[in-house]
Amino acid sequence: MGNTLTSRSQDYSQWYNDLILKGGLADYSAVRGCMVIKPYGYGLWENMRDVLDKMFKDTGHQNAYFPLFVPKSLFEAEEKNAEGFAKECAVVTHYRLKTDPDNPGKLIVDPAAKLEEELVVRPTSEAIIWNTYKNWIQSYRDLPLLINQWANVVRWEMRTRLFLRTAEFLWQEGHTAHATKAEALEETTRMLDVYANFAEEYMAMPVIRGVKSVNERFAGAEDTYCIEALMQDGKALQAGTSHFLGQNFAKAFDVKFADKDNKLEYVWATSWGVSTRLIGALVMAHSDDEGLVMPPKLAPLQVVIVPIYNKDAEARQRIDDKAAEIINGLKSKDIRVKYDNDDTNRPGWKFAEYELRGIPVRIALGPRDLDNNQAEVARRDTKEKQAMSLDGLVDNVAQLLVDIQQNMFDRALKFREDKTSKADTWDEFVRLLDEKTGFIYAHWDGTPETEDKIKELTKATIRCIPLNNVQEEGKCILTGNPSTQRVVFARAY
Amino acid sequence: MGNTLTSRSQDYSQWYNDLILKGGLADYSAVRGCMVIKPYGYGLWENMRDVLDKMFKDTGHQNAYFPLFVPKSLFEAEEKNAEGFAKECAVVTHYRLKTDPDNPGKLIVDPAAKLEEELVVRPTSEAIIWNTYKNWIQSYRDLPLLINQWANVVRWEMRTRLFLRTAEFLWQEGHTAHATKAEALEETTRMLDVYANFAEEYMAMPVIRGVKSVNERFAGAEDTYCIEALMQDGKALQAGTSHFLGQNFAKAFDVKFADKDNKLEYVWATSWGVSTRLIGALVMAHSDDEGLVMPPKLAPLQVVIVPIYNKDAEARQRIDDKAAEIINGLKSKDIRVKYDNDDTNRPGWKFAEYELRGIPVRIALGPRDLDNNQAEVARRDTKEKQAMSLDGLVDNVAQLLVDIQQNMFDRALKFREDKTSKADTWDEFVRLLDEKTGFIYAHWDGTPETEDKIKELTKATIRCIPLNNVQEEGKCILTGNPSTQRVVFARAY
Repeated sequence: MGNTLTSRSQDYSQWYNDLILKGGLADYSAVRGCMVIKPYGYGLWENMRDVLDKMFKDTGHQNAYFPLFVPKSLFEAEEKNAEGFAKECAVVTHYRLKTDPDNPGKLIVDPAAKLEEELVVRPTSEAIIWNTYKNWIQSYRDLPLLINQWANVVRWEMRTRLFLRTAEFLWQEGHTAHATKAEALEETTRMLDVYANFAEEYMAMPVIRGVKSVNERFAGAEDTYCIEALMQDGKALQAGTSHFLGQNFAKAFDVKFADKDNKLEYVWATSWGVSTRLIGALVMAHSDDEGLVMPPKLAPLQVVIVPIYNKDAEARQRIDDKAAEIINGLKSKDIRVKYDNDDTNRPGWKFAEYELRGIPVRIALGPRDLDNNQAEVARRDTKEKQAMSLDGLVDNVAQLLVDIQQNMFDRALKFREDKTSKADTWDEFVRLLDEKTGFIYAHWDGTPETEDKIKELTKATIRCIPLNNVQEEGKCILTGNPSTQRVVFARAY
Repeated sequence: MGNTLTSRSQDYSQWYNDLILKGGLADYSAVRGCMVIKPYGYGLWENMRDVLDKMFKDTGHQNAYFPLFVPKSLFEAEEKNAEGFAKECAVVTHYRLKTDPDNPGKLIVDPAAKLEEELVVRPTSEAIIWNTYKNWIQSYRDLPLLINQWANVVRWEMRTRLFLRTAEFLWQEGHTAHATKAEALEETTRMLDVYANFAEEYMAMPVIRGVKSVNERFAGAEDTYCIEALMQDGKALQAGTSHFLGQNFAKAFDVKFADKDNKLEYVWATSWGVSTRLIGALVMAHSDDEGLVMPPKLAPLQVVIVPIYNKDAEARQRIDDKAAEIINGLKSKDIRVKYDNDDTNRPGWKFAEYELRGIPVRIALGPRDLDNNQAEVARRDTKEKQAMSLDGLVDNVAQLLVDIQQNMFDRALKFREDKTSKADTWDEFVRLLDEKTGFIYAHWDGTPETEDKIKELTKATIRCIPLNNVQEEGKCILTGNPSTQRVVFARAY
């Protein structure tokens, strides 16, 4: 199967689709722009979710669940937010179907069951949540309110890509309420750090932490913080955002609290989210022409053991017994392992299949290996094979998983460093974008008009203004106007 | 707060609502029939989900995720299923809002963005899933396909109740595909057993396992298996269902597989689900006039420690130190514990609050307790208090949690047994229903018409025909026609 994949150099976009579909992560569905997340892809999402959920709880958050639907009148209350999402809202207008009188066995929408007020399928939940918070927040004692929701959301995108941009996607959205601006700002960056740590430590994907320009800001936010990653085709991908919402939603939904002096004040807000898009990022950051490459910490399956049987039943039994012993050892270390002794497939087919699926470590066990007290251990990231002694195998495989995780991060970091440049002139900027791709640090005069113009001319956008950015005098690459810092440009997903 | 609750005898229905709202499980929302699941309620759902998810995985199932929307033409493919759900479908007809030209700042549905084909918000996912399985199943080697989905679904119910019947609810739905009828039937009862074990071992709620009559069968199923529980007002509640779908969906979506002889056969199917409705069942099965009573195995918080401070700072420190020691001990046994040393509330207020929330064990620690090397330990189920020695306290509290779990089950079982009767005549049946309530075993002639008539006359329905039911000759309580077995009647939620 591995052989039938498109290579990255041939057609990067097709390579990505091949990996998602043939690697068993997702499938197209009968609904425009919506995908089916297959068990292997969902297993990956479960691992991501469990790690993030623990990180959220360790930082004091609790989960809750708010309605899927937002009445139109609530949706439009925060005008900028509403305007930002209006063009991509799925709208429920009726609550009943009935039999088609002209077409037995077929159904039609019952015109008598029209809703008085249309319901928007949530594209994000600020409106419905802040309308609820109004009833939950009276005094400073009710603050901070630190709530997260795991949910599906719908944004009717015109051009969709599996995981990267789908009409429906799964995500988490944190929505917090605070007594002071300082606390809300602190929360915003705290959660950005959680995302950055998750991306780097678990996804093995280095990210730049920064703030968005006005053009790229979340609709309804005062500031949008983000983490930006680099994909293997040199395009950037926004992997998570954390928004400082100021008092915009508190004002739109009239959410005030009595402070210690019993004075009524508007509440300060944040929201932050990551989605199944991270699966797309993970695939594009690490995989190769043979298939997926999963970072061990998130891999649904970390080790697979493939027996190399011959016709000797006794040898077969010896292999099964040794495999059982190794599996027990690995499981006692909480390593996710599978023994593939399915006779209907040949070892070579299995090797290709597990390579395609990106299992970090493959152990092959044959009669000769046992005679030599060793196993053949292959690592997916470098495709190196080595004979490993059966003595201490479990410990060595556990260490190998740690090494693979680190190597994947180091490799991705080196790739990003190689693909990061500075541009000081317009010509250099355009040339780097076209020929080298990647992140380009360049001066910008700080105006939305210039950013728009650069996007129009090159399709590159400002990915972020890095946190703790070096301040240096310079001239905008497009207008030559004065600038105080370089910002990060790239073409992006 | 506890004092302001309605009592069960006063108004059972209001008592239930008071507990859900004041106990912090859920809140009403701005969307008709939809609720907000608050952190405490969601924590309970997370515990239920985690236990069930492990049970599903232990029986060989994997999770996946399918689209929220079902195109109308797919939805109507299995006619009985479509007909059964058509009257309660939320329908998406448009994919965009636009600014209202007559009303600046307001939005209207953009008539130019009408979908060619309407999308039904899934009330259940058989249609979208079987349309997908068609592409995944070709040969007997692809079977069985054992998939579960955790998701939100929408059924536009006219009369809603928090948790028990909401327009949107959270659930899991298993959808499996098999090569033979026998395997599918086995799966149907296997999952019924999983549900029954979960209800009894974790929710401490005894259930009857049985099969539904034709009238109460899931639309599109050949047979619906169910677990039925008894609430404290003597009404039954269907707590989970497992459906044998025969080949109905395989035929509707043309899903065939090549068997070992390369002959094409239709696939056999099951589906099974439980929902956030279980939270309503848990509340109604166990709680009392002082508030919620949580079974320890699912309680978001199992033990709360309340310090009884006086003004002596040194005594305060001694209490904090001892509490920290106890908490460490409890946490090392994976017991979920909280130390409530919030100075702004008095101990009496806290006692009432934790009673309302149903925390299984409350430990009070005061200076005099420490002097006597003991703590005051109160159990929520019986409201008994005892002085417990600090020596061995952790072990004794762990054992107390086990005892509470068992006692709650025993008490609920005794209640059900007391509320279970046999009726041999119509008059007796009606009198038992009205005066004693509960489950009534009675003969029925097996016809849907008789069942309808009984429902019309008494509002009682056949909850189920118990599995392994005793066969005995008798006469239908309504018609006097011959019958071979008693079935279980009750008024139900």
